Amino acid sequence: MAKDNLTAVLHGIEDLRLEQRPIPEIGDDEVLLAMDSVGICGSDVHYLQHGRIGPFVLTKPMIIGHEAAGVVAKIGKKVTNVKVGDRVAIEPGVPCRYCDHCKQGRYHLCPDIVFCATPPYDGNLTRYYKHAADFCFKLPDHVSMEEGALLEPLSVGVHACRRGGVGLGSKVAILGAGPIGLVTLLTAQSMGASEILITDLVQSRLDVAKELGATHTLLLTKEQSAEDTVKLVTQKMSAQPDVTIDCCGAESSVRLAILATRSGGVVVVVGMGAPEVKLPLINALAREVDIRGIFRYCNDYSAALALVSSGKVNVKRLVTHHFDIKETAKAFETSRHGLGGAIKVMIHVTPRNTNNPVKF
Amino acid sequence: MAKDNLTAVLHGIEDLRLEQRPIPEIGDDEVLLAMDSVGICGSDVHYLQHGRIGPFVLTKPMIIGHEAAGVVAKIGKKVTNVKVGDRVAIEPGVPCRYCDHCKQGRYHLCPDIVFCATPPYDGNLTRYYKHAADFCFKLPDHVSMEEGALLEPLSVGVHACRRGGVGLGSKVAILGAGPIGLVTLLTAQSMGASEILITDLVQSRLDVAKELGATHTLLLTKEQSAEDTVKLVTQKMSAQPDVTIDCCGAESSVRLAILATRSGGVVVVVGMGAPEVKLPLINALAREVDIRGIFRYCNDYSAALALVSSGKVNVKRLVTHHFDIKETAKAFETSRHGLGGAIKVMIHVTPRNTNNPVKF
Amino acid sequence: MAKDNLTAVLHGIEDLRLEQRPIPEIGDDEVLLAMDSVGICGSDVHYLQHGRIGPFVLTKPMIIGHEAAGVVAKIGKKVTNVKVGDRVAIEPGVPCRYCDHCKQGRYHLCPDIVFCATPPYDGNLTRYYKHAADFCFKLPDHVSMEEGALLEPLSVGVHACRRGGVGLGSKVAILGAGPIGLVTLLTAQSMGASEILITDLVQSRLDVAKELGATHTLLLTKEQSAEDTVKLVTQKMSAQPDVTIDCCGAESSVRLAILATRSGGVVVVVGMGAPEVKLPLINALAREVDIRGIFRYCNDYSAALALVSSGKVNVKRLVTHHFDIKETAKAFETSRHGLGGAIKVMIHVTPRNTNNPVKF
Amino acid sequence: MAKDNLTAVLHGIEDLRLEQRPIPEIGDDEVLLAMDSVGICGSDVHYLQHGRIGPFVLTKPMIIGHEAAGVVAKIGKKVTNVKVGDRVAIEPGVPCRYCDHCKQGRYHLCPDIVFCATPPYDGNLTRYYKHAADFCFKLPDHVSMEEGALLEPLSVGVHACRRGGVGLGSKVAILGAGPIGLVTLLTAQSMGASEILITDLVQSRLDVAKELGATHTLLLTKEQSAEDTVKLVTQKMSAQPDVTIDCCGAESSVRLAILATRSGGVVVVVGMGAPEVKLPLINALAREVDIRGIFRYCNDYSAALALVSSGKVNVKRLVTHHFDIKETAKAFETSRHGLGGAIKVMIHVTPRNTNNPVKF
Ligand SMILES: NC(=O)c1ccc[n+]([C@@H]2O[C@H](COP(=O)([O-])OP(=O)(O)OC[C@H]3O[C@@H](n4cnc5c(N)ncnc54)[C@H](O)[C@@H]3O)[C@@H](O)[C@H]2O)c1
Ligand SMILES: NC(=O)c1ccc[n+]([C@@H]2O[C@H](COP(=O)([O-])OP(=O)(O)OC[C@H]3O[C@@H](n4cnc5c(N)ncnc54)[C@H](O)[C@@H]3O)[C@@H](O)[C@H]2O)c1
Ligand SMILES: NC(=O)c1ccc[n+]([C@@H]2O[C@H](COP(=O)([O-])OP(=O)(O)OC[C@H]3O[C@@H](n4cnc5c(N)ncnc54)[C@H](O)[C@@H]3O)[C@@H](O)[C@H]2O)c1
Ligand SMILES: NC(=O)c1ccc[n+]([C@@H]2O[C@H](COP(=O)([O-])OP(=O)(O)OC[C@H]3O[C@@H](n4cnc5c(N)ncnc54)[C@H](O)[C@@H]3O)[C@@H](O)[C@H]2O)c1
Ligand SMILES: [Zn+2]
Ligand SMILES: [Zn+2]
Ligand SMILES: [Zn+2]
Ligand SMILES: [Zn+2]
Repeated sequence: MAKDNLTAVLHGIEDLRLEQRPIPEIGDDEVLLAMDSVGICGSDVHYLQHGRIGPFVLTKPMIIGHEAAGVVAKIGKKVTNVKVGDRVAIEPGVPCRYCDHCKQGRYHLCPDIVFCATPPYDGNLTRYYKHAADFCFKLPDHVSMEEGALLEPLSVGVHACRRGGVGLGSKVAILGAGPIGLVTLLTAQSMGASEILITDLVQSRLDVAKELGATHTLLLTKEQSAEDTVKLVTQKMSAQPDVTIDCCGAESSVRLAILATRSGGVVVVVGMGAPEVKLPLINALAREVDIRGIFRYCNDYSAALALVSSGKVNVKRLVTHHFDIKETAKAFETSRHGLGGAIKVMIHVTPRNTNNPVKF
Repeated sequence: MAKDNLTAVLHGIEDLRLEQRPIPEIGDDEVLLAMDSVGICGSDVHYLQHGRIGPFVLTKPMIIGHEAAGVVAKIGKKVTNVKVGDRVAIEPGVPCRYCDHCKQGRYHLCPDIVFCATPPYDGNLTRYYKHAADFCFKLPDHVSMEEGALLEPLSVGVHACRRGGVGLGSKVAILGAGPIGLVTLLTAQSMGASEILITDLVQSRLDVAKELGATHTLLLTKEQSAEDTVKLVTQKMSAQPDVTIDCCGAESSVRLAILATRSGGVVVVVGMGAPEVKLPLINALAREVDIRGIFRYCNDYSAALALVSSGKVNVKRLVTHHFDIKETAKAFETSRHGLGGAIKVMIHVTPRNTNNPVKF
Repeated sequence: MAKDNLTAVLHGIEDLRLEQRPIPEIGDDEVLLAMDSVGICGSDVHYLQHGRIGPFVLTKPMIIGHEAAGVVAKIGKKVTNVKVGDRVAIEPGVPCRYCDHCKQGRYHLCPDIVFCATPPYDGNLTRYYKHAADFCFKLPDHVSMEEGALLEPLSVGVHACRRGGVGLGSKVAILGAGPIGLVTLLTAQSMGASEILITDLVQSRLDVAKELGATHTLLLTKEQSAEDTVKLVTQKMSAQPDVTIDCCGAESSVRLAILATRSGGVVVVVGMGAPEVKLPLINALAREVDIRGIFRYCNDYSAALALVSSGKVNVKRLVTHHFDIKETAKAFETSRHGLGGAIKVMIHVTPRNTNNPVKF
Repeated sequence: MAKDNLTAVLHGIEDLRLEQRPIPEIGDDEVLLAMDSVGICGSDVHYLQHGRIGPFVLTKPMIIGHEAAGVVAKIGKKVTNVKVGDRVAIEPGVPCRYCDHCKQGRYHLCPDIVFCATPPYDGNLTRYYKHAADFCFKLPDHVSMEEGALLEPLSVGVHACRRGGVGLGSKVAILGAGPIGLVTLLTAQSMGASEILITDLVQSRLDVAKELGATHTLLLTKEQSAEDTVKLVTQKMSAQPDVTIDCCGAESSVRLAILATRSGGVVVVVGMGAPEVKLPLINALAREVDIRGIFRYCNDYSAALALVSSGKVNVKRLVTHHFDIKETAKAFETSRHGLGGAIKVMIHVTPRNTNNPVKF
């Protein structure tokens, strides 16, 4: 087996290094993966810039990366769901399997979950990475490795829409048209939403949303109050949204979500904003507008894969830039500053298209 | 106002007559509708042939027809949701609004519901018909009157899929590819089902299903046992269906639904078959496969309309034949014997396209 | 029929008058009630003191009172659920029956609901009052008129616990031990909660809670921060609460609710506090703690009645004071200032026990 | 450590032997248990009589017993939830933790579940038994070992009532008053059911049900048709039941369940009867009465324990007979023929009360 295991390791704030790491040994229920594609997520950039996200603090070097797909290189003794050579998407969090959350089907809330690139656990921007086999999802031939990597953000959209109860004929407002807002848009469409309004501060992002099928777009400015904006939302849509999904985390956006949603509707908060926000709670209460945060995903990967493989959604449109793992620094620069209109930046550990039976 | 109120009245078994009836007076919360399109449903034919369906027995002449759309000709004093000239689809059952079912949001179970063309209540294959305004749904300009009439069967599909919990990535089996099976197929697609198998005894119906996007079709014979068929279903699909929806009502079909569905899944029974069926209940029980019948629809019309108006589904494909109200007898003949590959037969009370701003 | 219709009318801030009003005429679906018992609610006091609650502003004289029971004196032509002489509890909000909320079984969100003693609609602290018959609930002989009046706050508790998903083995924290906190306690017990902690600023209220069966009580001071209190909650309970129900509306209390609840749990907000509150939303989000406000009740009255009539809960304990309608001013004084340890103050329009077949 | 590991092994039909077996070695996530109390279940008797239950066939000797409690004698390296000396109830099925059912919180449907005394897996009527630590539930001091063993059938009742949606004010009918019917009764009460009717063929069983708080009892004969009985149910109850729970499995009982339940209600089938039953499916369908089977339990043990430890239910009443493990044959005789009015027969592997801090 190859010896080269080039790996992107975050040593501290603004200190991301490429270095060789030993190839990991696998357990009986694990697989070794030859990594292919790894997308850069806002949280990766956040760790690079700040060395922490909320309670998760980088205290020792950590491998970065968690939006990923790879090829099975070796399987543990008990593994039956995949075989060597299979191309797989990687669900990056492996829970303890023993606690109440795990048994009750909400394993993403497991306090002992091992989640890629969340301190103290390593991520997978590396040539060889091991993972629990049952958290690897075999890709059909016509689904590319990049699409496999994109199942990670797409699963966030799936989880958000499911938690929001988006369904046939739903009127949905999505606040924020970054990668997460866009995958949420794609998911909501696929679940039967009949009308989707999306907001952003940046017109180019709204243009992409429009292209992907948003029914209405609404360009906001940072100064606009929620109270002003709510009228614009209502004017654009045929009725108040049943479900409003915040995908940016701004206080004004969560406020807007509450005020805009119809009585009896649901506000889903995906965006991770300030630790404290001022909210018109009594407005939500007196109209029974529920507020549901979401944390990653849980049992959502196979639906995300089904969305892509059935052709219902086109996530490829989100990838604007490609880099080799050796260009990791440049890739992070691009993502961080949104250079060249970057939406999703993809890092290729294996050269692009090598592992795709259906080339594109 | 016009005096002509030509009406199709069922006087008894095989005794359907066209006759003049007085134009009805409306109440404060009602509208008078100039009828446009009325589809023929299996139940209409059943009343013609048998004079009854289960406990509902024709004991006096009854106006036939309940899949309908019309144009508002007059409105009651309290009506605000529609105005004269509006083109509307008609949800044919008006409940009492007072009982527990009505208050709990399951008004279709209201024991006092007044449902078109279910004895002793009149239907709407007539020139002028009055209806509760809030059970009329205004059609946008680009939705045709026929599509409005088709919201009735489509709502059955919506209700079935909702009750079955069809969602993102669902694997669905639909048993029977008549009008109801086909609208269920369209609905399941729109809710994100990733794989849909459909069965029938008649190849031509499966061909239409295929054309409408079924992933797999399965031609069955009346002789096949459920035990034999279950293997075929599993072979065709990538996994056992999460939800199986019976849309024909045959005992063997309901049996198949139970046996084929994955553990923890749902069987929805739409088909109205024999009063008694022999079922492998212990199989369902030991695998917690739930069995849920459906009765018409409830709060489903607006989603059905959203499906059509957003262009997500194309119900027009289901209409194979058109007749004028004066040709009612012929229309029923066609529907009853499936002449000319009839799927849905539409009766035009107003000449076709008269009331459609967007002609087709 | 009697001519005396003494009525408590709120003319403006601090201007509550007893005056004669005409006895109302009833509609076909209505009943005329000879009022018996009317409890004073915090909102009645609030209107007296401030002339408004949020958007509801007193602009013309309004009859006060909405927690009530009476005896049927006359019935409309279409009424079948009650007859003259029946003792009934009155659900005080009558919705439009036509809008989507009404049809979907969430009639309490109906924008056109007519709710007693919420401007501009009159309440029922009066000798003769008319009401929709189907919003009257016949009391069995062994349930007293006062208990009938108490179904109103009890229904709030039922609605709160249902929305919170309280169930078998639930660990519940209730914040605030006023009338609403106490009925919520009683309801949670009856739904199978195995551990209930309750907080208040006033020891005497906690004493009542203890007497009614709270597993733990926690005396708080206004100065305590939510961050400090959360530890105390966790220490007292065997585990973090699954459901936390705020019944006081203080900002610190809602904050505590979020911080104290287990991951994946639910915060129910009943308390109506300041229009704006500062919340640790990200804490709720990252642990998927849902926030659900509640507004009154909906389809909860019959469960509340079943609780009382089956003897599962004893609401009588909440009534600390009794007054005749002629002493309305004194009754409001007592309630307003919590004189004599007042919890629930009851006004008797008919002398106490007159209409109770089972005297107590 | 002791060498004696007396064990009850079923070698074949009518061939149950007591023999020595090696004391098992434990894994890192397991505990060794010194067994205390083991109840006899109908399925144990069934294996003794028939050597099989449906697809589960005894092909090699199998240790019998699965309703059990014991004392922790040794713990694996990774075990933290219990310690040596802890008294625990044993949830007898340990799932794979890797399949979709396990991840989705329905681990009882796991195809690879290892369930005590279900071929080919051994049970726990033995002195020393090993089990997954996280499927052991520590008993508080005041809960006896026998009550621990009874959590097994009680969990079936919990699961049945939860699946049926029993709640505040529910009207419930329970068909069959054997051990399972009785625990279902106790559970339904604790969840807030306001009216519970129970049926049986044997008056003495109904007497126990009455003593445990059933609101109505109904003695049936084998000959009575469901159609006849449905009237009696409706006469006894104040309204049709919202939820009907079959706990005997007779065809006539399941039929009754369907016919008796109110429109929109739920039939839960717990009883395991004939492989095929004739059902009035169209009656269920046209009234949307859902049919839900249940299989064992899942995430129900802690609620069952909370019910017992909070004193809400008294399961001790169900135990009518006690035997030492050496009297296993006699114990099975008693259970099998219902000798001496046997309801639940308990086998003590350790002499009764030895491990109960609170003696009774
Ligand atoms: N809850 C979770 O599990 C989870 C998972 C992934 C991401 N997230 C969060 O989701 C959010 C979105 O992620 P992303 O990768 O798309 O981020 P991003 O920063 O790329 O995109 C956010 C978008 O929101 C827009 N925006 C900013 N303020 C706005 C406002 N007031 N109104 C409307 N739009 C506004 C920005 O212009 C940008 O286009 C982030 O807060 C991230 O932390 C949460
Ligand atoms: N539950 C409700 O509220 C509701 C509402 C409308 C219709 N229905 C019922 O739904 C059913 C379908 O309605 P439709 O209008 O489509 O009827 P239809 O008779 O036009 O179509 C039924 C289709 O099922 C096929 N079929 C018959 N036996 C089959 C079998 N064993 N396996 C597979 N396919 C088989 C037939 O060839 C036909 O194509 C009817 O039973 C009708 O009574 C119920
Ligand atoms: N959402 C609804 O539909 C609805 C219906 C009825 C009442 N309410 C609201 O419920 C709340 C309670 O009603 P009530 O009649 O019991 O009121 P109340 O004022 O009689 O009782 C509130 C109790 O909370 C205690 N309290 C105050 N601050 C506290 C804190 N920080 N922590 C713990 N306890 C604290 C008080 O000492 C008092 O005992 C009110 O805000 C009322 O407006 C809402
Ligand atoms: N689904 C599951 O996971 C599960 C778990 C445990 C037990 N069970 C099943 O539950 C059922 C009850 O278990 P049990 O241990 O109480 O059994 P049991 O045999 O001790 O009790 C059954 C009771 O039902 C009565 N009965 C028989 N026919 C009746 C009828 N037609 N109407 C009313 N009552 C009738 C009997 O007289 C008896 O009292 C059994 O079928 C058992 O297999 C199922
Ligand atoms: Zn865990
Ligand atoms: Zn009704
Ligand atoms: Zn309304
Ligand atoms: Zn499993």
